[in-house]
Amino acid sequence: MSLNSFGHMFRVTTWGESHGPALGATVDGCPPGVPVDAGMLQHWLDKRKPGKTKFETQRREADEVRILSGVFEGQTTGTPIQLMIENTDQRSKDYGTIAETFRPGHADITYWQKYGIRDYRGGGRSSARETAARVAAGGIAREVLKTLAPGLRIIGGLVQMGPHVAHARDWDEVENNPFWTPDAAAAAHYAEYLDGIRKAHSSVGAVIEVVAQGVPAGIGAPVYGKLDTDLAAAMMSINAVKGVEIGEGMAAAALTGEANADEIDMGPDGPVYSSNHAGGILGGISTGQDVVVRFAVKPTSSILTPRRSITKSGESVEVVTKGRHDPCVGIRAVPVGEAMMACVVLDHILLHRGQVGANRGAIGGVV
Amino acid sequence: MSLNSFGHMFRVTTWGESHGPALGATVDGCPPGVPVDAGMLQHWLDKRKPGKTKFETQRREADEVRILSGVFEGQTTGTPIQLMIENTDQRSKDYGTIAETFRPGHADITYWQKYGIRDYRGGGRSSARETAARVAAGGIAREVLKTLAPGLRIIGGLVQMGPHVAHARDWDEVENNPFWTPDAAAAAHYAEYLDGIRKAHSSVGAVIEVVAQGVPAGIGAPVYGKLDTDLAAAMMSINAVKGVEIGEGMAAAALTGEANADEIDMGPDGPVYSSNHAGGILGGISTGQDVVVRFAVKPTSSILTPRRSITKSGESVEVVTKGRHDPCVGIRAVPVGEAMMACVVLDHILLHRGQVGANRGAIGGVV
Amino acid sequence: MSLNSFGHMFRVTTWGESHGPALGATVDGCPPGVPVDAGMLQHWLDKRKPGKTKFETQRREADEVRILSGVFEGQTTGTPIQLMIENTDQRSKDYGTIAETFRPGHADITYWQKYGIRDYRGGGRSSARETAARVAAGGIAREVLKTLAPGLRIIGGLVQMGPHVAHARDWDEVENNPFWTPDAAAAAHYAEYLDGIRKAHSSVGAVIEVVAQGVPAGIGAPVYGKLDTDLAAAMMSINAVKGVEIGEGMAAAALTGEANADEIDMGPDGPVYSSNHAGGILGGISTGQDVVVRFAVKPTSSILTPRRSITKSGESVEVVTKGRHDPCVGIRAVPVGEAMMACVVLDHILLHRGQVGANRGAIGGVV
Amino acid sequence: MSLNSFGHMFRVTTWGESHGPALGATVDGCPPGVPVDAGMLQHWLDKRKPGKTKFETQRREADEVRILSGVFEGQTTGTPIQLMIENTDQRSKDYGTIAETFRPGHADITYWQKYGIRDYRGGGRSSARETAARVAAGGIAREVLKTLAPGLRIIGGLVQMGPHVAHARDWDEVENNPFWTPDAAAAAHYAEYLDGIRKAHSSVGAVIEVVAQGVPAGIGAPVYGKLDTDLAAAMMSINAVKGVEIGEGMAAAALTGEANADEIDMGPDGPVYSSNHAGGILGGISTGQDVVVRFAVKPTSSILTPRRSITKSGESVEVVTKGRHDPCVGIRAVPVGEAMMACVVLDHILLHRGQVGANRGAIGGVV
Repeated sequence: MSLNSFGHMFRVTTWGESHGPALGATVDGCPPGVPVDAGMLQHWLDKRKPGKTKFETQRREADEVRILSGVFEGQTTGTPIQLMIENTDQRSKDYGTIAETFRPGHADITYWQKYGIRDYRGGGRSSARETAARVAAGGIAREVLKTLAPGLRIIGGLVQMGPHVAHARDWDEVENNPFWTPDAAAAAHYAEYLDGIRKAHSSVGAVIEVVAQGVPAGIGAPVYGKLDTDLAAAMMSINAVKGVEIGEGMAAAALTGEANADEIDMGPDGPVYSSNHAGGILGGISTGQDVVVRFAVKPTSSILTPRRSITKSGESVEVVTKGRHDPCVGIRAVPVGEAMMACVVLDHILLHRGQVGANRGAIGGVV
Repeated sequence: MSLNSFGHMFRVTTWGESHGPALGATVDGCPPGVPVDAGMLQHWLDKRKPGKTKFETQRREADEVRILSGVFEGQTTGTPIQLMIENTDQRSKDYGTIAETFRPGHADITYWQKYGIRDYRGGGRSSARETAARVAAGGIAREVLKTLAPGLRIIGGLVQMGPHVAHARDWDEVENNPFWTPDAAAAAHYAEYLDGIRKAHSSVGAVIEVVAQGVPAGIGAPVYGKLDTDLAAAMMSINAVKGVEIGEGMAAAALTGEANADEIDMGPDGPVYSSNHAGGILGGISTGQDVVVRFAVKPTSSILTPRRSITKSGESVEVVTKGRHDPCVGIRAVPVGEAMMACVVLDHILLHRGQVGANRGAIGGVV
Repeated sequence: MSLNSFGHMFRVTTWGESHGPALGATVDGCPPGVPVDAGMLQHWLDKRKPGKTKFETQRREADEVRILSGVFEGQTTGTPIQLMIENTDQRSKDYGTIAETFRPGHADITYWQKYGIRDYRGGGRSSARETAARVAAGGIAREVLKTLAPGLRIIGGLVQMGPHVAHARDWDEVENNPFWTPDAAAAAHYAEYLDGIRKAHSSVGAVIEVVAQGVPAGIGAPVYGKLDTDLAAAMMSINAVKGVEIGEGMAAAALTGEANADEIDMGPDGPVYSSNHAGGILGGISTGQDVVVRFAVKPTSSILTPRRSITKSGESVEVVTKGRHDPCVGIRAVPVGEAMMACVVLDHILLHRGQVGANRGAIGGVV
Repeated sequence: MSLNSFGHMFRVTTWGESHGPALGATVDGCPPGVPVDAGMLQHWLDKRKPGKTKFETQRREADEVRILSGVFEGQTTGTPIQLMIENTDQRSKDYGTIAETFRPGHADITYWQKYGIRDYRGGGRSSARETAARVAAGGIAREVLKTLAPGLRIIGGLVQMGPHVAHARDWDEVENNPFWTPDAAAAAHYAEYLDGIRKAHSSVGAVIEVVAQGVPAGIGAPVYGKLDTDLAAAMMSINAVKGVEIGEGMAAAALTGEANADEIDMGPDGPVYSSNHAGGILGGISTGQDVVVRFAVKPTSSILTPRRSITKSGESVEVVTKGRHDPCVGIRAVPVGEAMMACVVLDHILLHRGQVGANRGAIGGVV
């Protein structure tokens, strides 16, 4: 069963554990003739790499990606692309006590309950290191999108950290702060707040928003391959994510029909909307507006404050997770969310091309 | 492409339009030897049926389900089960103007942009009538679960309507009010509030919570077949849903690591937890706690207040959606959410049985 | 698990038993905007229907197909098409002894061993009646192919019956004989031979050849979605099929490399080949030549000569299968093979469109 | 689209080209707790490796497999297993003329027509080197089968080469000759015949038979996931295969119902059959008899005799394929066929476990 795969047409299978020899992604269904090289992917992996600022774990991971197949003379061939990232930092350290103890908030206990096997080396398959493979695959998707949807832009950032919510959405701002937040004022609040969290050896959650601008109208599909269904699955599959919202999200519950309606006018290039409560998706199909997704990441479970837990033999213990951890893993989830968005949007463009093709609708449909 | 299907092992494909001859679900992968008859499914269809109280649309739909295949002498045979619900209320009415106009908030415009075809009869495939087929399939799942997970209970209800939030979680209360809310006090607030909405010809959104009690520890799978991933997709695929939460949900963003930690103790039958911020899922795998999902339903888009829109030829119009509509579609989404939960949980039990089987873990794993 | 489904993009799920209320096919992934009505499908169902000549079973089956969804105002909508054929001849006859006995050569015993459930009414799900649903789905595929590959022609016929092998391939001859054989001389031999078989209450096997002319070069995909892989699966899934060949088939084993080579010249419209040992497929991808598939159907297992078998309780019995059976089921397998070819070819055209699109190769590739 | 994947539960995706940096297989869905190391897999890779006798190409390929993920402390973990084989012999040689010419019988021309990209280095993705990855994955399947079906034995060999057909089936004989044929007399004929072919710079086709002994009754599934359907697809997906047979195969066409019937008696451990025309499968489900598959491999297309072809620009050329080629590629297809059989049988055992479980039938069903 391909439970480590996602995507219908652009099919990505990730593999690998945090402390094994390597991890990576097998990408099947990539169109041929697209210029791709490892350097293009490295750009995104570097965005996800830890240790760029004091707000991230100070671990060193080279995260260099190699392309082992599916690219020939600088172009995709249409055959599976194998992306491999070797794990350079696999020193055999003393896992003695950790190996016997379940860390609260981690998947240690559920993997053990499911498989009866525990890869105690830093989380094994459940480690967030797996998301490096997603980012590499997302890099491929971005290159394909350049050829199929030239005006498309995918951009994300932190819009909430702990109690601090970003209100502005200035997407040109994201490169100016270490949180990729589209709100310069929020960036300042985050920095001060997170400094406190970090010094208290605590951690905090976050909300990430990812926006796709320039998505053609008409992609997505009823009723279990909806664009929003696939986005919800994509984002919820990221480590530590506990909620996903499209457009108005959970707040839609508090609105009346009048307040929630996005009115429609005819613009020069197709329909234009008075607002975007829908988040760019109606009935699972894109409207041509910005596709807007948000997801909440829980606070890092590894903290220095002692927490009660049990061992494999059922004895009570206190767990303190030492080591270098991100005080807010949400920050490094930004490029991961962007990668998932790129994969899902590309997937649905390919699907539309295959299943509908030129038989498209009249008003601003997909080319 | 099976975009109208969901589930890995227990695979449900729904088909049909709101005003065609019939709609239904094809269920492939149901284990053999499970007692099933149409009456068992009818119970759940009746729960979803409109017109039970003044808070629902007064349309009449018989919603009688027939089993056309896969059941012999009262037992499932292991072959596909075809469930058909005939549409009794298909009178040919004058759709003249509606057929040319896009209703704001509906999928009329995106279907048109995607397919160039519009089934204007009440929403066609994008109609919430499709969820009747899900409820029928969920009824099958419930019968199978009785044999595979005898202690399991799946129950849901409205936990928010407009500004009113339910705080209690007394699941024995849900049969006592028309909102299946687990909070008797909230029920009173909902009733009064919705009466006002209804009389104002408006509509309002809602949050539904669905809980699965007695889910065995160890079901789910890394990393794209996570239990929470599949639940997020299942709920987001329901009409009008804009957000999905597991456990703490979006609120996890505001917590610190200390506040979010579910501490673990050893109980007589396996691990017990001090709290359930995780919503019963760690690393995509069930912990044995209650699995808790919430989803937000936007307000009914069909309202009597005029809204600006365009026609197929791009001309501006004002749209007023007459007819009998639910003032809060969230109410009738409760049995739909329960059905999706039943399908997903069963699916993962079958998956676990196939992929892990007896090679399971030591502490309270799946039998 | 969708084990009752086939196809990647054009996805067909069949359901139903020989003596249940109905059987049919759910077709997901059909492009929109294609003119379809039940009459178009009926043409192919009538070709498969029994009792047309003395060489077929004299059972009466109306085999009338209804379209329950996915077609609106005479056009496909892009949503699932539900095709239903009601079983009219379900009289409750005395199955008393049959229900307890396993008929040699039938799936009675293996279904019992697998499921512990036996639908003894004429084979249940394993009955060849299931192929009526395939033929209906194939009818849809043919209509779509008219729009996507206008010059395509799919035609099949009996090329071997018992010891008699057809040598000619005059495909305009097939409508002139009850075996749809492309060899008039063979038709005469078949008729005389089968008359003897029929009168001896025996049965005989057959080989069917199905040819697709005008398949564009470049469809198919490495390495497990090869065009020939999918054709082999499609044909082997038909009841009673024991072998599948592409082009030279099993005879390729006896050839040398020189004899087997199809030499290539450049013609006015692309490459032309000196021969077609390859059966129109190289490396799993179409060459533009005729795609040629053959499959062998075993003799009808239901014969009047007594055969030794056992009962459900393990006692020895002699089985004589009375009733009206086809002396050569291979004849009625012809439209089934054609339907499978239509589905597979369409599926791969849609796949190519989605995954490769305009990025195609230079010499006579798919448009 | 996962067109480079096969299997339902035990899901194998192969990747890589003949002259890229590496090739391999991603195995998803392997049960946990199974002892596996690279040495176990190497045994089967060595069986497929070229250059063992004068009857095979004298190319050197190290074919050393590394396990990059999914195995921890010598046991499978239940997460994806990445198997990588580095290509050691990738010297940059002068492909100048080959790169512009299409070799008859090869996929050069169809890949070009499909993708507009040609990896001219030894066949690229269409090279038979891809089968090394299958053999590695098959090695994993064999280890799992040891735990799930202890008595199972999978064995194959050449049963036809050119005009020479093997009649004996002494499976203990296969290790005694370089053709793994179960007929010692045939081995002598093959050797003499192939020596002539080799010296004439020609090539020849072959038929391979693969048998699975000890397959439990009751695995397989109607009607598109039949055991024989999946075996037909698995074998037809191997390079150069043109035909697949189950049991009696194409010869079933020449039989009468009386001759083809496998009569049933009750033995001490379940049903026993008087013969095995069915090849161990009825209605797509195993009977408990030997599962018998045969497939025909065409003669190696690369021969020294000149053959007419065209260049990418459409000019006529004569092609002579120099280099070290197998005179009968069928020989090295034996371990590949065995690997596919192992994967398919394991896949269906896992499927049965998941979908039917303990609800199995009464007479000798799957445990």
